[in-house]
Amino acid sequence: MSTGVRRRMGVEERRQQLIGVALDLFSHRSPDEVSIDEIAAAAGISRPLVYHYFPGKLSLYEAALQRASDDLAGRFVVAQEGSLGGRLLRVMGRFFDFVDDHGPGFAALMRGGPAVGSSTTNALVDGVRHAAYLQILSHMKVEQPPARLELMIRSWISLVESTALIWLDGRRIPRADLERQLVHDFGALAAVSAAYDDELAALLRESLRNEPGDGPFTDLVVRLIALAS
Amino acid sequence: MSTGVRRRMGVEERRQQLIGVALDLFSHRSPDEVSIDEIAAAAGISRPLVYHYFPGKLSLYEAALQRASDDLAGRFVVAQEGSLGGRLLRVMGRFFDFVDDHGPGFAALMRGGPAVGSSTTNALVDGVRHAAYLQILSHMKVEQPPARLELMIRSWISLVESTALIWLDGRRIPRADLERQLVHDFGALAAVSAAYDDELAALLRESLRNEPGDGPFTDLVVRLIALAS
Repeated sequence: MSTGVRRRMGVEERRQQLIGVALDLFSHRSPDEVSIDEIAAAAGISRPLVYHYFPGKLSLYEAALQRASDDLAGRFVVAQEGSLGGRLLRVMGRFFDFVDDHGPGFAALMRGGPAVGSSTTNALVDGVRHAAYLQILSHMKVEQPPARLELMIRSWISLVESTALIWLDGRRIPRADLERQLVHDFGALAAVSAAYDDELAALLRESLRNEPGDGPFTDLVVRLIALAS
Repeated sequence: MSTGVRRRMGVEERRQQLIGVALDLFSHRSPDEVSIDEIAAAAGISRPLVYHYFPGKLSLYEAALQRASDDLAGRFVVAQEGSLGGRLLRVMGRFFDFVDDHGPGFAALMRGGPAVGSSTTNALVDGVRHAAYLQILSHMKVEQPPARLELMIRSWISLVESTALIWLDGRRIPRADLERQLVHDFGALAAVSAAYDDELAALLRESLRNEPGDGPFTDLVVRLIALAS
């Protein structure tokens, strides 16, 4: 197998090409099942040449994961306009697009297969979580989050991850429902947290000022806050 | 170092003693930092004798994790009496007792350090999650859960895990508050799910029949279901 036209690539160009090819393979099957031989064949180069650019499968996997992590972290960056509920809904759409595109690789990574779970891959995953957390804070216009808000946002992010993993296992619930449900979950978890913390309740009310008054998100959260307090 | 009195133990007795000693060490420091030498010293036997019973640290770690997993799964088994909210609150108390007792080991396991992340350890962790899931179903008296209920319970379990991990990192929120908050989170997530699924809404109403009418759990869930439908 060969890509057909052969030409000499520069080192960085070749590395980037290999990362792209590997990411595509790692995304569609569990990374454990992808061999260096397959990556070489898909890139149209020899196995020794792959090793010339990457010392082993783990380093190529980590490079592919770095690219995927940058991509995923970027999905949480949406325009600072419109309501918080609307922004979160856009973020969820972009997040599930990613999960859809990289399903088996995402599942293998998050479930920690034998080829993964190195400290580098863990750091990359944590980096994405942290980037997502910071983006949500910025959408809420909060700079110094109280401990309960930090806990609530971080635990919602883990809820998003686990929901995506469970969804991938059979896709028995329409994706769009889950995206909307997770935004509602955010509101519900925020409201429960606000019940324990007046500062957080005030902060949530402030974050919801731009929310359309008749939107389901506002409705849910405003009533929950009233209920809880 | 020695335990003082030396006597000949049977093979199984010695294995169980080593597992107990190792579990204690793995619970209080990250398992990566615990050496076979330390385990041998704490058990009052020689390093070669440890290897006689366990071929390496990983196998001893896995045996310790097996015991911890059995313990943890057992925490979700509480008497089938009283309200669902009350049962979940008891379960959360028992769960956080475990997390408190095994903090660093629990954190290392769930965060996937280098010594962990084997397919055996992943299977043990998944086994605990599944046992917890089945227990919650049985408390709800549900035998054939609809897909949304399965998703909701499984994702709540992951919320419990991540909340415990975040709590361990600084313990900035009182444990009792978190236990109660997680029970409320269960209600809030269930109510949001019920908004998407009439069967689930009916099922939740049935599960809440024994709930004390003035309890915070019922109040939250009943109002949320009304709100969502």
